[in-house]
Amino acid sequence: MNNLVALKKLIDFELEEFNNSLLNKKPSSLYEPIKYTLDLGGKRMRPLLNLIACDLFDGNVSDAVKPALGLEIFHNFTLLHDDIMDKAPLRRNQPTVHKKWNPDIAILSGDTMFVQSFQYVMQSPTLHLKEVLDVFTKTAIEVCEGQQMDMDFESQLNVSIPQYIKMIGLKTSVLLAGSMKIGAIIGNARAEDAQHIYEFGKNLGIAFQLQDDILDVFGSSQKVGKQTGGDIVSNKKTYLLLKAMDMADRYKKEELQLWMHTTNVDPVEKVEAVKSIYEYLGVKALAEAEMQKFYLKGLTHLNQIPCNQNNKDQLINFAENLMQRES
Amino acid sequence: MNNLVALKKLIDFELEEFNNSLLNKKPSSLYEPIKYTLDLGGKRMRPLLNLIACDLFDGNVSDAVKPALGLEIFHNFTLLHDDIMDKAPLRRNQPTVHKKWNPDIAILSGDTMFVQSFQYVMQSPTLHLKEVLDVFTKTAIEVCEGQQMDMDFESQLNVSIPQYIKMIGLKTSVLLAGSMKIGAIIGNARAEDAQHIYEFGKNLGIAFQLQDDILDVFGSSQKVGKQTGGDIVSNKKTYLLLKAMDMADRYKKEELQLWMHTTNVDPVEKVEAVKSIYEYLGVKALAEAEMQKFYLKGLTHLNQIPCNQNNKDQLINFAENLMQRES
Repeated sequence: MNNLVALKKLIDFELEEFNNSLLNKKPSSLYEPIKYTLDLGGKRMRPLLNLIACDLFDGNVSDAVKPALGLEIFHNFTLLHDDIMDKAPLRRNQPTVHKKWNPDIAILSGDTMFVQSFQYVMQSPTLHLKEVLDVFTKTAIEVCEGQQMDMDFESQLNVSIPQYIKMIGLKTSVLLAGSMKIGAIIGNARAEDAQHIYEFGKNLGIAFQLQDDILDVFGSSQKVGKQTGGDIVSNKKTYLLLKAMDMADRYKKEELQLWMHTTNVDPVEKVEAVKSIYEYLGVKALAEAEMQKFYLKGLTHLNQIPCNQNNKDQLINFAENLMQRES
Repeated sequence: MNNLVALKKLIDFELEEFNNSLLNKKPSSLYEPIKYTLDLGGKRMRPLLNLIACDLFDGNVSDAVKPALGLEIFHNFTLLHDDIMDKAPLRRNQPTVHKKWNPDIAILSGDTMFVQSFQYVMQSPTLHLKEVLDVFTKTAIEVCEGQQMDMDFESQLNVSIPQYIKMIGLKTSVLLAGSMKIGAIIGNARAEDAQHIYEFGKNLGIAFQLQDDILDVFGSSQKVGKQTGGDIVSNKKTYLLLKAMDMADRYKKEELQLWMHTTNVDPVEKVEAVKSIYEYLGVKALAEAEMQKFYLKGLTHLNQIPCNQNNKDQLINFAENLMQRES
């Protein structure tokens, strides 16, 4: 078993090699934004989960490290394109590519990263290549579907909680799940175990996104790294908002809708008001319970995998840390 | 040997199957624009060249038909994203996706098509999978590089003819070349012959793009399917313009620059004026000679392939038709 620090080092080394290779590539207007994006940092959660999953089955993690990097490049490609669609000015406290350069460059650098991600995922061992690519492309399609659903929700009047869970399942979770499944496949896991690890990742991902929703409102703004309440300001249909609309009586619902539909409102005031409605309705505790439910469901899948308990504990440890994060 | 009509039928059948499969996919806001794009039609040149190349080596074209469709989907994905960047309102006389829907949907439907193109190219025979994917991803990266160079040229004062040829080589030709090479690989061609067919496709592609430049100015607007002179109106740095700037004396150069830099000019008048400068300088004949040079260079590569002359004649016939097109 490799410890987490060692796995993280493998990824950082590979990523640095890749980033350095971009320095000499032409046209630089295409490659500079790619290097910029990857240099912004991040938890490198997807490649880490990929290597941990490979390690879980005592696989050779050096076989998985190139595909792992491919997953990180893919994730960053989706951020690049999502930021255009969301008109986001900042990413990790730095200007987004479409702001620092322009949307055309963000589209095209993103497309290029997409191809590069395939080039890395393709470096899976030949024996597993087809299976890995099947998981990867299925995942990539689902991520696009999730992003489209998210955009559709903006103009959709009634979004149900199951629809919301489906959307975050596609937009966020399948990539965590797919990353782990690819690691398991490269680690020579049996098909049923690779599927268990996929389900673990899928449920963990949903729990993770629900926590994101909670932290956006109730996290400490310093630790979250952005102003809290951004989702409230933009009327984003999160689990908290949808649950509040479900729970509220007629009067509270009207109050909530008034805050959502009034323009030119002071954002700090709006966040405080909506937050106090959430507190009144107790939706934070409900969201936490939902999050816990998905996490525990994930664990039942992990428990069914007949592998070394030490390896499993490392994964559980990593997941618990994710679930207890404050940002 | 399969005749062209039979090969075209294979592609049309596969494409129709794919298009029908999109009908039931959700979210429909993601999949409708994909079906719309592919329904707009087109010459299906890339999949055809792929199958012809496979056939040239007496390969089994049914092995190549899924990757062939992947190449067509990939090409249409690039059109979708290029149209956003070029702010093009029309494609094949119909509104472009970013106009009919919106740019966000065009970005995301394009991304989805990109994944779908991989899913089809991945259906190459296992024996050749890695090699095919290497060619495909290298090609895809180069197409992005070519598009970026084209965008860079817009604000670049001095673009040389060799730079221009390099740009169209990447933006247009490598996909024709790569399509043929993939067909040859699936047709079990020897490595050197697959490379010859690649070079044939590359040179044919450059000749094809030079002809596009000529047709935009000197083609019949009815046959071209769009107003002639669009490149002149938008000051696009084509072979004709770059050659004219090279050839012109000080006075003609000033005249040309005046037309390029004057805003609020009548487009019909501008097209006529620039066209008459082109005629005065004889750049049409020079462009045609350049086009012929690349085409003949391509043929020397084709000639070095030791295969059935009948098969070769079919390819030459197809290429000659391309070179003599009026639209």
